[in-house]
Amino acid sequence: MDTLGSIGEIAVLQRLFPRLPEAESTLVGPGDDAAVLAVPDGRVVITTDTMVQGPDFRRAWSSPFQLGWKAAVTNLSDVAAMGARPTALLVALIAPADTPVTDLEELADGFREACNALAPGCGVVGGDLSVADSLTLAITAFGSLDGRPPVLRSGARPGDVVAVSGALGLAGAGIRLLFERGVDAEGEPSSGAAAALRPEFDAVLDAQLAPRSPIGDGALAADAGATAMLDVSDGLVLDARRIARASGVRIDFRSADLDTDVVALERVLHGGEDHALLATFPSGVRLPGGFRAIGSVVDGDGVTLDGEVLDNRGGWDPYADWDGASG
Amino acid sequence: MDTLGSIGEIAVLQRLFPRLPEAESTLVGPGDDAAVLAVPDGRVVITTDTMVQGPDFRRAWSSPFQLGWKAAVTNLSDVAAMGARPTALLVALIAPADTPVTDLEELADGFREACNALAPGCGVVGGDLSVADSLTLAITAFGSLDGRPPVLRSGARPGDVVAVSGALGLAGAGIRLLFERGVDAEGEPSSGAAAALRPEFDAVLDAQLAPRSPIGDGALAADAGATAMLDVSDGLVLDARRIARASGVRIDFRSADLDTDVVALERVLHGGEDHALLATFPSGVRLPGGFRAIGSVVDGDGVTLDGEVLDNRGGWDPYADWDGASG
Repeated sequence: MDTLGSIGEIAVLQRLFPRLPEAESTLVGPGDDAAVLAVPDGRVVITTDTMVQGPDFRRAWSSPFQLGWKAAVTNLSDVAAMGARPTALLVALIAPADTPVTDLEELADGFREACNALAPGCGVVGGDLSVADSLTLAITAFGSLDGRPPVLRSGARPGDVVAVSGALGLAGAGIRLLFERGVDAEGEPSSGAAAALRPEFDAVLDAQLAPRSPIGDGALAADAGATAMLDVSDGLVLDARRIARASGVRIDFRSADLDTDVVALERVLHGGEDHALLATFPSGVRLPGGFRAIGSVVDGDGVTLDGEVLDNRGGWDPYADWDGASG
Repeated sequence: MDTLGSIGEIAVLQRLFPRLPEAESTLVGPGDDAAVLAVPDGRVVITTDTMVQGPDFRRAWSSPFQLGWKAAVTNLSDVAAMGARPTALLVALIAPADTPVTDLEELADGFREACNALAPGCGVVGGDLSVADSLTLAITAFGSLDGRPPVLRSGARPGDVVAVSGALGLAGAGIRLLFERGVDAEGEPSSGAAAALRPEFDAVLDAQLAPRSPIGDGALAADAGATAMLDVSDGLVLDARRIARASGVRIDFRSADLDTDVVALERVLHGGEDHALLATFPSGVRLPGGFRAIGSVVDGDGVTLDGEVLDNRGGWDPYADWDGASG
């Protein structure tokens, strides 16, 4: 079986390149010292996010395709949260020498399908391939504002509507389910145990392992006049607190507008890794795309639910919750 | 002692931000979902390069300051090799939970001092901090062409002068010295043994651990009409072969013009990690900055020395030469 170590970086890259999505804005693509990307409006949105085996994923639960998909989506979502259209990805991949090349090909397929499904026109313009003991994906994503002002966290004003696009709480329920029931008798992550949880729990497992974030809604929100926006990655309340702090306002959620059909309110409020978009809009704006109103911006500080103060529980903390499992 | 695990990502970032260099082209800096960078000429040069503990560095030999410096320089050099001026870095840092925060501060100092010394105006605009068992730095660098066409590997033409800026062979001699004499009785990397090699071997150790690459010469070469250019990272001959192949020409080096005062010819030709700039210029061009002529472009293919074919030895291969040491 061909592995990264047995055939080497250059041969692996030759097998990966044809599977990677092309970026429409590429001026110089892979193969030189650097790539060159067209940025017509003179500003480029840039972000980097890393997925590390152990704290961020376990090989027993995530297929290579899902890892590629999720690594792309978490970065695309940060670009979208600025009100930008994702244009390109750079992929730094660090993998054990014994990684089968077919796994790396599936990773590339995950990047491609996520871009094609959620951010058409966005592609991979370059990267780096290295060897280490565990698998790490460090992705940089690029976006174009196409003339829009960037949507920051600091623009929410009392009277604004608070709205969200994307699922809340499902991804957090998915990881909890995997830790509780996707394990073997010794408590170690098990691919067999995880597989047995499907199809009953497809929705929460997919939300955790291969989220379908509303990437296109970022630019739509900016066009509709969103005053603040962010990617909900650490739980609704913790991330809303970031908007509240940056904007000098209080965010008040209405429990009746939070969807608790699939997961309980507690998880909707505090589950992590949603990669939904939380935004504030001037009152009276017709909410674009998949955005739905879930609260309002009022005078004060912090985050409340139906006017009641929420405790300071933060949401997902990869340090506190990491159990060291590296499977 | 404060560590990454004990005080957490957010508190660490608050200690690192003030030490990081600001990028003059920053429109939105750290603290939101993504950064926004001004790219006045509508094109952005982008590259990513990773440094992994074990294959790429050993903690016993490299101080945190040197790691930050070298991680910055290897990426800045790839930007320079396109004929661009480096404008910004994104830093994805993955470190063990027990890493002292003071080590991370020294890393940040290394980024800052490298930018200030070699690419003034370039700064860190964002990043990501994660926990894993070993230290990894995944850097993305950005550059502006300021209206110049990018200098690719494919433009060399027979009759062109081959020139280099920066030291050749020193970095390769440095790593060889460390593997031979920077080790303890068991052959493990030793900080004490490495320290004892200074000051006798300062030049080769600095070239390996904290290279001073001629970053500014990249844009100067483009302005002077360089027809091809690359960052010499895998050894002069191997990298010259890349220009020869991409351009459909032969590169002929003149041994009399290769500086063998400090290291032997073999190492000048094949030592890795030089991070010098190798470029071709039209005949008669006054060579800019630190460039010096070392050969010529002729009809044919491959790489020769005084007209004699060189063997196929490639230069530095991190996979073949990695001994697995992770100290």
